[in-house]
Amino acid sequence: MSDADSPVDRLLETSPFDRHYGLEILEAGEEVVRGRVPVRERVTQPTGLVHGGVHASVAEALASLGTNHGVAGEGKIALGMSNSCSFLRPITAGAIHATARRRHRGRTTWIWDVELTDDDGKLCALGRVTVAVRTRPQE
Amino acid sequence: MSDADSPVDRLLETSPFDRHYGLEILEAGEEVVRGRVPVRERVTQPTGLVHGGVHASVAEALASLGTNHGVAGEGKIALGMSNSCSFLRPITAGAIHATARRRHRGRTTWIWDVELTDDDGKLCALGRVTVAVRTRPQE
Amino acid sequence: MSDADSPVDRLLETSPFDRHYGLEILEAGEEVVRGRVPVRERVTQPTGLVHGGVHASVAEALASLGTNHGVAGEGKIALGMSNSCSFLRPITAGAIHATARRRHRGRTTWIWDVELTDDDGKLCALGRVTVAVRTRPQE
Amino acid sequence: MSDADSPVDRLLETSPFDRHYGLEILEAGEEVVRGRVPVRERVTQPTGLVHGGVHASVAEALASLGTNHGVAGEGKIALGMSNSCSFLRPITAGAIHATARRRHRGRTTWIWDVELTDDDGKLCALGRVTVAVRTRPQE
Repeated sequence: MSDADSPVDRLLETSPFDRHYGLEILEAGEEVVRGRVPVRERVTQPTGLVHGGVHASVAEALASLGTNHGVAGEGKIALGMSNSCSFLRPITAGAIHATARRRHRGRTTWIWDVELTDDDGKLCALGRVTVAVRTRPQE
Repeated sequence: MSDADSPVDRLLETSPFDRHYGLEILEAGEEVVRGRVPVRERVTQPTGLVHGGVHASVAEALASLGTNHGVAGEGKIALGMSNSCSFLRPITAGAIHATARRRHRGRTTWIWDVELTDDDGKLCALGRVTVAVRTRPQE
Repeated sequence: MSDADSPVDRLLETSPFDRHYGLEILEAGEEVVRGRVPVRERVTQPTGLVHGGVHASVAEALASLGTNHGVAGEGKIALGMSNSCSFLRPITAGAIHATARRRHRGRTTWIWDVELTDDDGKLCALGRVTVAVRTRPQE
Repeated sequence: MSDADSPVDRLLETSPFDRHYGLEILEAGEEVVRGRVPVRERVTQPTGLVHGGVHASVAEALASLGTNHGVAGEGKIALGMSNSCSFLRPITAGAIHATARRRHRGRTTWIWDVELTDDDGKLCALGRVTVAVRTRPQE
């Protein structure tokens, strides 16, 4: 098994689900994570707007990835605990631009605020994600 | 344009995003909506658990669909307003089974509670989705 | 120190804040907790409606009390972790009637759904409260 | 009826409930609202920590007041729609210091983020409040 396949490395990559809908990570650290999703038909709901679940998925992905950046090296793992998003303005074209910022680093939970904007920089969704930090099971 | 392509019909179908990750609708009405998602690699996060964003997406989809069942015939449309999910127990195989129940039918907002369970019927996630009801733009 | 003053007993009483605005506990156990608050001027906002913070406070109180009923005997304590309420319909007179039902009993967190109704039994607010279970510090 | 008793003025004051537990408004406008609550026994839960419901109440009060500052002059009124708080760190003494910042000004809903800190400036709770904007009934 190469390093690229190690459990820690895997925690710092995008997940199969995130790759499936098209999340690209632009920056990842334990305080800030940034990503984008190109708007294609696959991320829309029936009227052509970006599906609210995509906003929630991006928020979840960025918060989990950022927490793993902080804890994976210590034998721990991030597990999403709750995810709350408000949808302010529709996105229909271009890309979803997302920035997650850590608001709380507790011993057992981290909290992230996530802003999702359109190509014009307008705020389209707000997410708050609580991530539990658990000991990683041995593989 | 056939009936199958009418704007109202389209609101009562699954969306491109939901089909992309694999949501199947089992029952849909304005009070209860039920669906399922087979667990395949595409809905997982790096450790093989179902991605929290999938739970949120299913909750969003069911609540929006149910609201459209109630309002699409009156020239209105459902628009997701907020989505809040708690993740209780991981799902790693089988299917996600989801049931959305309407808790509030207001003039401008509907509220749905969504339960997501595994093949054993164990509660794995809880969602609460607020859906705005707006007048549908003319096409 | 009498039994009535023991730390465990204190956890199973209403709190100073809850007594201050007028919460009365009608039933308390680790699965269901019920209470009521008479509507007096002290629980209203400027237009005479019950203040949203009162609904949130009642939800928090009932969920914490119920969790303490389940864990206080084992040397643990309930600590509110998150509280999310939706306000559906105003209450202006009579009483707030609240019922909290446990939805999840995890090792480290419990989740409660709380319904708040008016004298006619109409649903006026919905709360979801996550309570952390921690080891009680020695006094 | 003097100006001080006009409906608009009343909307820009603290409410009976907020005065009851001790909220003091330090600054109020349609983009930022700041307040504080002295920690006295009346705002605590059984173990002496500030009750989570107090944090939620302060968040609700500040968001509603700020929205009223923006809309009351136009014959409209703010009505709390949802309130979501996360509790990060206990407060046991001194004061609760709260700052609400508007994140979204929509036609029918405003969204506020509220930070609650202790005397040392440490973040103790985070709130997100959605406020509906409605036409004010004639008195």
